[in-house]
Amino acid sequence: MAPIPNGRALFAAIPKGFPVPGETIVYDATETIDLNVPLNGGFLIKVLALSIDPYLRGMLRPPEVSSYIPALTVGAPIVSAGVGVVLRSELADVAVGSYILGSFPHKEYFVAPSLGGTARIRILERDPRLPLSTYIGVAGMPGETAYMGWREFSKAKKGEVVFVTTGAGPVGSMVIQIAKNEGLKVIASAGSDEKVQFMKAIGADVAFNYKTTKVRDVLSKEGLIDIYWDNVGGDTLDAAMEHANAFARFIECGQITGYSTGVQPMKNPMLMVNKSLTFNGFMVRNLRAKHTESFFAEVVPKLADGTYKYTEDITPGLDKVGEVLLGVLKGTNTGKAVVVVADE
Amino acid sequence: MAPIPNGRALFAAIPKGFPVPGETIVYDATETIDLNVPLNGGFLIKVLALSIDPYLRGMLRPPEVSSYIPALTVGAPIVSAGVGVVLRSELADVAVGSYILGSFPHKEYFVAPSLGGTARIRILERDPRLPLSTYIGVAGMPGETAYMGWREFSKAKKGEVVFVTTGAGPVGSMVIQIAKNEGLKVIASAGSDEKVQFMKAIGADVAFNYKTTKVRDVLSKEGLIDIYWDNVGGDTLDAAMEHANAFARFIECGQITGYSTGVQPMKNPMLMVNKSLTFNGFMVRNLRAKHTESFFAEVVPKLADGTYKYTEDITPGLDKVGEVLLGVLKGTNTGKAVVVVADE
Repeated sequence: MAPIPNGRALFAAIPKGFPVPGETIVYDATETIDLNVPLNGGFLIKVLALSIDPYLRGMLRPPEVSSYIPALTVGAPIVSAGVGVVLRSELADVAVGSYILGSFPHKEYFVAPSLGGTARIRILERDPRLPLSTYIGVAGMPGETAYMGWREFSKAKKGEVVFVTTGAGPVGSMVIQIAKNEGLKVIASAGSDEKVQFMKAIGADVAFNYKTTKVRDVLSKEGLIDIYWDNVGGDTLDAAMEHANAFARFIECGQITGYSTGVQPMKNPMLMVNKSLTFNGFMVRNLRAKHTESFFAEVVPKLADGTYKYTEDITPGLDKVGEVLLGVLKGTNTGKAVVVVADE
Repeated sequence: MAPIPNGRALFAAIPKGFPVPGETIVYDATETIDLNVPLNGGFLIKVLALSIDPYLRGMLRPPEVSSYIPALTVGAPIVSAGVGVVLRSELADVAVGSYILGSFPHKEYFVAPSLGGTARIRILERDPRLPLSTYIGVAGMPGETAYMGWREFSKAKKGEVVFVTTGAGPVGSMVIQIAKNEGLKVIASAGSDEKVQFMKAIGADVAFNYKTTKVRDVLSKEGLIDIYWDNVGGDTLDAAMEHANAFARFIECGQITGYSTGVQPMKNPMLMVNKSLTFNGFMVRNLRAKHTESFFAEVVPKLADGTYKYTEDITPGLDKVGEVLLGVLKGTNTGKAVVVVADE
C-alpha cells in the first residue's frame, strides 16, 4: 500500500501569553505513513477524536521549568486524551475494530506498542447510548475530575451552598448536577448568556455571566458559601473567600485565569485561618484508584440515560487544535471542546 | 473594708500598625474595689497571671470590621486567658482558694457570676509539678493549639519532613516536640540565635534564625517538606509552598507577619493545584470537643515530668501589657509571654 499523509498538530513554539494559532501549534501534513507499517507486536490506531483542555497550556513551556505535569517537546506532536479505533493488531488482547482510549499524540495514525504504559492506552467498553467523544469528556477525564474531586473533598451536606466556576464546561456542569442531586443550593458562573441558560437548564439555582455581573454582588446576595469549586483562581477566588462561611471547603481544581497571563496572588490568605477554611488542590490521576468503580457505577449510567446533561463543542479537523485551545483558554467555546480527526 | 485600687489594662485607642505601649493599651489605677463587694451568687477572683498572644492584635480593631474573633471595646479592659485564685465565693461548687482559669478582663480583681459562660470560667485541676502560668501556656491554649492542630490535620507519617515557624514560641516548640516524638525530621525557624539554641535543645534537626539565614536556602538544602506549620504567613509561606512535596499538608495556625502591617498575599496559589496541597485553617476552640481528653492524657503528663520542655517569658506588672504585646508581635520575647499580676 502506498504511504498516505499522516497529519499532525505540532508544538512549534513556546507561547509568551495566550497561545497563538498557527504559531504555537501548527498543523503539519508532510509526514506520511504506510498503513502496513510494521507493528512489532503492537497495534495501529486511527485517531477519531482528541480532547482539548485548559491544562494543556501548562505543558506548552520550556522543559527546564519544572511542574507536576510534564512539558511537551517543541517540534513534537501535542499530546492529550484521545479516542481511536484499531485498524491492525498483533496483540491478542486487542481486536481490530476495538475502540481505544488513552493519551494520544495529535496525529491521524500511530502505532501503540502495548496496552497500559504512561499513556494509559486501554480498550473502551462503550455504552452504545453515549457518543464516543463523551469518553474524553463527561464520561472521561473531565467528568472523573468533577465526580472524584467532589466525592473526595466536598464533605457536602444537604442544604449547603456551593459556588461553581466555569459551570458550563464539562467539569463545572457535572459538579452542578452532582451537587443538585445531593440537595445543595448551587450558584454557578460562566462567561456568556448562552452558558447561563445551559447552567439554569441543568439545575443551577443561581446562574450568572461574570462578564456582565459582578461576582461579589451575586455572592453578597446569595452566599455565604460552604463549598467553592475553583476552576478559575484570581479575583473570583478572592471573592469566594470573602463570602465563605466558617469551615467552607475550597476545591482547587484549576486556576485558568492564570494559565496564559501569569498566576494572580491570593489577596488575603489570612482568611483561611479566620474562617477555618480547608483548601484541597488535586489532580484526578491521584483519585482514580479510589473512585473509578463508583464513577462508572454512578455517573456513566446517568449520562447514558439522560439524567445528567452535557454539551460538546465539536470542531472537525486536526488543523484546528491551536484555535480550539485558544478558545478554551479564553472561554469562547461552549461545552466540552473536542477536535474530531476522523469520522467513525 | 476600705476600697483598694483595682488596676486595669485598658484598650485605649485603635492602633494603625503595631500597637504603641501607653497609647494603644494604657494602665489605669483610678478604679477601686471593696473586697467585700456584693457577689450576687458569684465569686471574687484575684488575678494572678494573664496570657499575651499574637491573636490579641486582631481584637484591637474597630467594631464595624467583622472577624471571627470579637473586637475589644475601646475604653474597656483587654481580655485574654488568665489564671487566678478565689478570694470569696457564694457558689457551692467554687471553694475559696480554688485556682480558676478562663477568659479574664485585665484587672487585678473581678467578680465572676458563675462557672462556664462565654468566658469559659472553670476550676483548674492543677498538677503540682507545673507552674500555674503553664496553664495559660503550654498546658493551656497554645499547647492545645499545637497538639490539636497537629492531631487533626498533620496526617504525619514517620520519616516525613515538617517545617515549623515560630519554633521557640509556645505553639511552635510544642509542635517540634510532638513531631520529633512521632519520628519526623523537623526544620524550625525563629528570630534570634538564643531561640535557635532552644529549638535545637528540644530536638529540631535543623534550626535557623530567619533574620540571618534565608528560608529558601535552608529549604533548598533540607526540603522538600511534607508538612508546614504556619504561624507567620507572608514570604515564608510562599517559600514553603515552593519547597513542598506533592500532597503536603499546610496547617494554617496564624500569619503573624500580617497582624500589624497588613496581610501579605500568597504569591502563587496555583501551586495548591500543581502539588495537590491541602491547607487547613483552624481555631483551637473548634477542636477542643474532640481532642481535650487526649491532650490531658498525652501532653500534660509529659510537660509535668519534663519530657516536653518549654520556656516562659514572665513580665511582672499589669502596667506592662502593652509592651509585652508589642514584643510578642515583633518577636522580641523568648518563650511564652505571660504578665504576672500578683504572686500566688
